[in-house]
Amino acid sequence: MKDIRVGLIGFGTVGSGLAQTLLEQKDRLLRKVGARIILARIVDINLEHLPEQFKDAQLSKDVNDIFNDPDIDIVVELIGGLEPARTFLLEAIRHGKHVVTANKALLSIHGKEIFEAAGHNNVEVGFEASVGGGIPVIKALKEGLVANRILSIMGIMNGTANYILTKMTDQGAAFDVVLKEAQALGFAEADPTYDIEGIDTAHKLAILMTISYGKLVQLKDIHTEGISKIQPIDIDFAREFGCRIKLLAISRHHGSHVEARVQPTLVPESHMLANINGAYNAIYFTGDTVGNVLLYGKGAGKMPTGSAVAADVVDIGRNILHGSIGRVPALSYLPEHIGTPTITPMTQLCCPYYFRITAVDKPGVLSTISGIFGKHSISIKSVIQKSRQQNEPVSIVLHTHEASEAAVQKAIAEIDGLEVCTEPTVKIRFLVDEPR
Amino acid sequence: MKDIRVGLIGFGTVGSGLAQTLLEQKDRLLRKVGARIILARIVDINLEHLPEQFKDAQLSKDVNDIFNDPDIDIVVELIGGLEPARTFLLEAIRHGKHVVTANKALLSIHGKEIFEAAGHNNVEVGFEASVGGGIPVIKALKEGLVANRILSIMGIMNGTANYILTKMTDQGAAFDVVLKEAQALGFAEADPTYDIEGIDTAHKLAILMTISYGKLVQLKDIHTEGISKIQPIDIDFAREFGCRIKLLAISRHHGSHVEARVQPTLVPESHMLANINGAYNAIYFTGDTVGNVLLYGKGAGKMPTGSAVAADVVDIGRNILHGSIGRVPALSYLPEHIGTPTITPMTQLCCPYYFRITAVDKPGVLSTISGIFGKHSISIKSVIQKSRQQNEPVSIVLHTHEASEAAVQKAIAEIDGLEVCTEPTVKIRFLVDEPR
Repeated sequence: MKDIRVGLIGFGTVGSGLAQTLLEQKDRLLRKVGARIILARIVDINLEHLPEQFKDAQLSKDVNDIFNDPDIDIVVELIGGLEPARTFLLEAIRHGKHVVTANKALLSIHGKEIFEAAGHNNVEVGFEASVGGGIPVIKALKEGLVANRILSIMGIMNGTANYILTKMTDQGAAFDVVLKEAQALGFAEADPTYDIEGIDTAHKLAILMTISYGKLVQLKDIHTEGISKIQPIDIDFAREFGCRIKLLAISRHHGSHVEARVQPTLVPESHMLANINGAYNAIYFTGDTVGNVLLYGKGAGKMPTGSAVAADVVDIGRNILHGSIGRVPALSYLPEHIGTPTITPMTQLCCPYYFRITAVDKPGVLSTISGIFGKHSISIKSVIQKSRQQNEPVSIVLHTHEASEAAVQKAIAEIDGLEVCTEPTVKIRFLVDEPR
Repeated sequence: MKDIRVGLIGFGTVGSGLAQTLLEQKDRLLRKVGARIILARIVDINLEHLPEQFKDAQLSKDVNDIFNDPDIDIVVELIGGLEPARTFLLEAIRHGKHVVTANKALLSIHGKEIFEAAGHNNVEVGFEASVGGGIPVIKALKEGLVANRILSIMGIMNGTANYILTKMTDQGAAFDVVLKEAQALGFAEADPTYDIEGIDTAHKLAILMTISYGKLVQLKDIHTEGISKIQPIDIDFAREFGCRIKLLAISRHHGSHVEARVQPTLVPESHMLANINGAYNAIYFTGDTVGNVLLYGKGAGKMPTGSAVAADVVDIGRNILHGSIGRVPALSYLPEHIGTPTITPMTQLCCPYYFRITAVDKPGVLSTISGIFGKHSISIKSVIQKSRQQNEPVSIVLHTHEASEAAVQKAIAEIDGLEVCTEPTVKIRFLVDEPR
């Protein structure tokens, strides 16, 4: 059988993980695929530090050496970011190469352009590694759960944010302290904005929603809130309510419209998602046929992501060897059946809420605040007032029954406008597990 | 594109689940596959009660009507048991039909014959539904984790046994009481032997080991212990040790030999497998590239299993449509690379143990017992003696450090031979999570 020849653009963490995987698993893959999978070319801006064992590949600093090599079957883009990654992928596609990428930002913003170009050029796009690191979640959705209408998706899909929340929960430490520690350990980037503000999670949710629903969901469709305002006090209160705080991606399919949000969430301790700790990821689906399914594993890192990229390479390699390109549509549904989503307005959302209001401790404050909630038809389940320290504003924590986001936004605006309120109110939603 | 035509043998729980799935998901599958998947024929010994909506299929009581229909592409066997299921599958294969089955007993005993026949006839064998119900675990192992050496497999793969243990844990109820309740609710069969004695779990482990390691593992290779001797007192003691008791399938790849056992196991409460409750299943892999991965979902039932069978039908259907039969080897490795396993002798096993010894409460008993353990180099970590009730033998519970199964077997034989010991000692192994 013919060899499958791979060209790799970007020899960073994931790129070196792919190279190491293809090398270490060479014999195993041959025994499974019946053909050799060869890392034939590596392109990077800096090739000086390339370990000796990868120097069998042809090395270059010019991507055109990959595009113009007629023997390269699959181009793997692992440089990340929007440009030049977008241009490189489109060029590879234009040259008739199949492409594999782990680039969730790119796909959630320029996905339409890339998948259309691939369609016109009859090449495959593999993106297993873009969501959930080593967890084979894309394949599970596109193939294993093919005979399901996906009703909901909930996921912990950012290891950095989950690591920080786990440390805050276990050690009672402050957000800033844990973030610094995570940066020192290499669990968080120097600029952690994408991870802690939920943007990276939103990229991934856009991809999962697209292949789950057959609607092209983009980053801008997703309401995104991060975890940087969460304080140890919120984690303590969450514990009193029998919950843990997790950064969740949540989407529900309501038939004519779909919900799409990333937010810190109070998850009951008994729920599996409350028990996903550290840098692990988990994605929890509900399908109309299969019911609930959870997939768990390492959401990032050199080798887990290398495992997922290699799986895509093998998948496409098999289609090349068996002449079955296009066997599974890139986005699960055939291109002509992919529509545009109608996103549920956030104001229509209903769920129980947690509020932490910071106010001067004066007689009548609680009465004023509860009056405002009452006026907006928000029913309060419990109130906890943290015992005050001298001359400090108090924290008043409220747990509501189910309330509408529209009403909540109005009530909070009114409360935050009170003279006695010294800080913006912190609002965290409780998990509602049932599709509705 | 051509239609994919399916012949179904057996319209029981899972068969009707497949029929319902193909009907309900008809349009969705067309939008994903680009071809219609039609349930063309149904064979069952009793067709009188077939719901009206499935009567578009051609009905018959004779399997030959399926084998001899040249338009049938895929034959789905869902009657279970060894015969006539084996004969039906082999006949279908001989007629050049691709086959799909959920029959773990059959595959773990007659797998060699069936896969060889399929190879000779160049047809596919789908068996996703044989392990983990609706969880796409076979596809994950064969494709998503293709670039991994699987180091270990641990699984809760029998919903009935897990339901019983969960109820015993939550309610403190006795095994027999919970079993009767489970039978009344339809969670356990009239003859529950396969489920509670670990045999069904062993069938499934044999299948997972085969595709994980590329070694044809059979039922007889797996050391199997059930849960019928577990008492509420054991569950209480487990709790004191911070553990829950679960029926686990465990296999580890040691390079030149592989461990294979099904047993009740003391699982630390913090481990994900300790928190898989009720009729749910979970399978926990360690791969050398990906690290730990857990897949969770409904392990049985009409619709979840229907989801998995339908996924196999679609997978094979796509290979038919794209001319890519044999694209992924049935057992993950190409037939010429599948060997025979060397199974680790149980006596070589080392782990911490839990023993519950029932003895007459006389001075010196504990000293005699601990003397025997000492003689066999078994080091004791803690001893709990349950406060005695009048005229009743006492339960002495020991938690050991790591000990060898060989030594344990000798020590227990000696202890059970003591005149003061009134019942056979109950032995439960602790989970050791690290591959070794």
